[in-house]
Amino acid sequence: MCTFAAQFWVGMAKGFTSRKEDYSKWYNELVVKADLAETSDVRGCMVIKPYGYAIWEKMQAQLDKMFKETGHVNAYFPLFIPKSYLSKEANHVEGFAKECAVVTHYRLKNDPNGGGVIVDPDAKLEEELIVRPTSETIIWNTYKKWIQSYRDLPLLINQWANVVRWEMRTRLFLRTSEFLWQEGHTAHSTKEEAIAEAEQMLHVYGKFAEEWMAMPVLKGVKTENERFAGALDTYCIEALMQDGKALQAGTSHFLGQNFAKAFDVKFATKEGTEEFVWATSWGVSTRLMGGLIMTHSDDNGLVLPPKLAPIQVAIIPIYKNEEQLSAITNKILPLKAELEKLGICVKYDDRDTQKPGWKFNEYEFKGVPVRLAMGPRDLENESVEVARRDTLSKEIVSLSNVVAYVENLMEEIQTNLYNRAIEHRSTHTTTVDTYEDFKKVLDQKGGFVLAHWDGTSETENRIKDETKATIRCIPLEGKNESGTCVYSGKPSSKRVVFARAY
Amino acid sequence: MCTFAAQFWVGMAKGFTSRKEDYSKWYNELVVKADLAETSDVRGCMVIKPYGYAIWEKMQAQLDKMFKETGHVNAYFPLFIPKSYLSKEANHVEGFAKECAVVTHYRLKNDPNGGGVIVDPDAKLEEELIVRPTSETIIWNTYKKWIQSYRDLPLLINQWANVVRWEMRTRLFLRTSEFLWQEGHTAHSTKEEAIAEAEQMLHVYGKFAEEWMAMPVLKGVKTENERFAGALDTYCIEALMQDGKALQAGTSHFLGQNFAKAFDVKFATKEGTEEFVWATSWGVSTRLMGGLIMTHSDDNGLVLPPKLAPIQVAIIPIYKNEEQLSAITNKILPLKAELEKLGICVKYDDRDTQKPGWKFNEYEFKGVPVRLAMGPRDLENESVEVARRDTLSKEIVSLSNVVAYVENLMEEIQTNLYNRAIEHRSTHTTTVDTYEDFKKVLDQKGGFVLAHWDGTSETENRIKDETKATIRCIPLEGKNESGTCVYSGKPSSKRVVFARAY
Repeated sequence: MCTFAAQFWVGMAKGFTSRKEDYSKWYNELVVKADLAETSDVRGCMVIKPYGYAIWEKMQAQLDKMFKETGHVNAYFPLFIPKSYLSKEANHVEGFAKECAVVTHYRLKNDPNGGGVIVDPDAKLEEELIVRPTSETIIWNTYKKWIQSYRDLPLLINQWANVVRWEMRTRLFLRTSEFLWQEGHTAHSTKEEAIAEAEQMLHVYGKFAEEWMAMPVLKGVKTENERFAGALDTYCIEALMQDGKALQAGTSHFLGQNFAKAFDVKFATKEGTEEFVWATSWGVSTRLMGGLIMTHSDDNGLVLPPKLAPIQVAIIPIYKNEEQLSAITNKILPLKAELEKLGICVKYDDRDTQKPGWKFNEYEFKGVPVRLAMGPRDLENESVEVARRDTLSKEIVSLSNVVAYVENLMEEIQTNLYNRAIEHRSTHTTTVDTYEDFKKVLDQKGGFVLAHWDGTSETENRIKDETKATIRCIPLEGKNESGTCVYSGKPSSKRVVFARAY
Repeated sequence: MCTFAAQFWVGMAKGFTSRKEDYSKWYNELVVKADLAETSDVRGCMVIKPYGYAIWEKMQAQLDKMFKETGHVNAYFPLFIPKSYLSKEANHVEGFAKECAVVTHYRLKNDPNGGGVIVDPDAKLEEELIVRPTSETIIWNTYKKWIQSYRDLPLLINQWANVVRWEMRTRLFLRTSEFLWQEGHTAHSTKEEAIAEAEQMLHVYGKFAEEWMAMPVLKGVKTENERFAGALDTYCIEALMQDGKALQAGTSHFLGQNFAKAFDVKFATKEGTEEFVWATSWGVSTRLMGGLIMTHSDDNGLVLPPKLAPIQVAIIPIYKNEEQLSAITNKILPLKAELEKLGICVKYDDRDTQKPGWKFNEYEFKGVPVRLAMGPRDLENESVEVARRDTLSKEIVSLSNVVAYVENLMEEIQTNLYNRAIEHRSTHTTTVDTYEDFKKVLDQKGGFVLAHWDGTSETENRIKDETKATIRCIPLEGKNESGTCVYSGKPSSKRVVFARAY
């Protein structure tokens, strides 16, 4: 798992907007300057650069492990969806038709008028193909062939894939026309089992977000307005960014029998009757990268939790001549080997083309959790300077002690980042009882606002129009408490979570 | 890595064509009945089923490791290529324009005449987008921004992705409109370094094919006719299938400065001059699955080399009552745990819904390398029946010895499969000196035919037209030997490898 550290040199970043100046600009600059991703010349599509992709690979590996531990297997379904399939579930097509890439032809040819290469009008498809925005339709069309009896159930399948949604306003990782994701699609013989699956995957996502990304999340259910097109219920994890805006970080849908009905997927029960199959789908995407960045990073650049950092420890020698470098290297290499034995990804940056100060800045900007430095005085004292990226603090540690010290730091930084984010969330979660307070909190402080709501889409839409705040979720853990809707004054039995969101 | 074995039950396959009857039908049936893949309703696109995908995942994991060990990092580039980019390298567009999926619109809408959902004519793209058939153009357009100086080189990047080539005649894994692959794209400051990279990756592919797939390959260079569109040289690995036809299993291209010139990618040298960058690209795809299947499998179904088998050992209890099952299970579980400790993927199939004979057939058909069975008599004798998939032989092994025995079998089966394939290849490699013999060998025996060739495309094309045989490669290892072309009688300095191919 340390191959990235072994091979990749990070490059230099110059000039950087602070969060206070312009949070949105700070984010955009950070993503590009930290070599995570960049916009491509293809409208709305991004290039995920090696450093960014290495983080995504670590996310993938862990998620994939968690999916397999919960009984899922991977498969792969076609990129293209015939237009008629997409149309089979009415809500579904309504939700996705407005933003899809449509393949209409299958050949180019030389322009007979010398205008270069043109689309061959003779190669028009009989039926247009949609580049998958999500795969429920093509997968349920396939499941029809795979499911006959209760013995074929449950079917617990996941797919790692690219999808395309023709977004008009795009932002790196957060909203791009093409993005990478996984989509689980499961089939069950009972409603209860399908609901349990959707809830299980919500908890898998929550565990991943909290334990690996160090990003606290609220778990809840979406209102009808915010539900996935075709779902009966959408469960979600919602995180709070540093600017007080919410980020939907993952969703898990209970699809009922909607897709089974649309694609006529029935099974013979143990009792010999025939019933429609129950379904779930669930996904997280490269959007998680945006959440990771915005949860922890600061005005000095990226901050990565150790569990997802491609380089966990950077070691930098400080020297005036070859002799010093070689003496330092003699101390560093065994130290590096010992850290690697513990599974820690270490980069020893002994390049002579860059000065130590440049390297310090660089690894700081790239969010490497721990930086070690060794100069002539450390050599004399048999010590190492240890710097933490999360607190920016430094410590002199004796060489004999440094392996245990760094090993412990990996845990400590991971925990500290999580606690810091929890602290930020709790200071930015406000309970309000009047619409006036509601608006004031949103404008002055942001964050999650817990308020009573009358349960109607009408009220939800009006609040959204007036304040840009949406209901992020009806929290799973929220206690029942009677009150009155902040907008309509009608009765409510539970507070819901409002926020402005990405 | 054993998660697949832990969770997935294999299903039943009925009726099966033999290789002798109809090799092509045998292959198609095998792929479907062994649950590897199936054709989808989307023209030319396949669904890779969980069992097939689990093999592909094992291939990916090993290849990815080998790429990283040779200094490469992963990244991700857009799915779409603007038509004008594809056109920038003349040979390249010539090679790919005839078989590409073209996106022309970005929205659907409801037909105002009530005809359901239609493409919105107002949402026509200004410039058409091509679904990538390969990514040289979009990547070199990006590299232009990443490369300024010799310090930025080499750039050693790989991408795991789906690609689309609109094939008219498709076959599962071997030729599909959409397939999965990896494509490496590297940039270098010198010609020599780029050639060395292309050759290095050829050897990585060769090592993977031989040591992991147990599939012997010839390494060579393609003739101009068979070269990748845009390459100066295409290196390839060529394998021989059981029906005597060749399969191109991987290619590595030295692209010269073609793409650097097409996209104006220059770098400042150490000496302060400016030069175009040198390039390579290299790829293997889900086509490898076809090679794996056709190299080893037999009339009893799939045969998998242990290193790529999702389930390496299947254990089946034979019992008449619950008491027997529980006694057997008590013996099996510790055995299973010991095998798993050695990293072996074990499936204990104690389902009571299927008979042992059914399970025997099933794991045989799915190519599981080793099958263990334990019945009442084995229980008494403290022994296990061990069956090998490659030789179909059985052995009674004492329980105390079986872990070591099976561990050793993993190696032995891997080696045996490779040796068997080498043996098949050498008996199907023929040196010929006349065109008459050339045609006779092709028709009666098939396989690789080593013949002198005059080096012209004209001769190559005529031979292809007359015999359907193509030059698979000019072997890297072939010795120089003067002779005369079997077709034209003109002088030749080296034999080349002809075959009919997939």
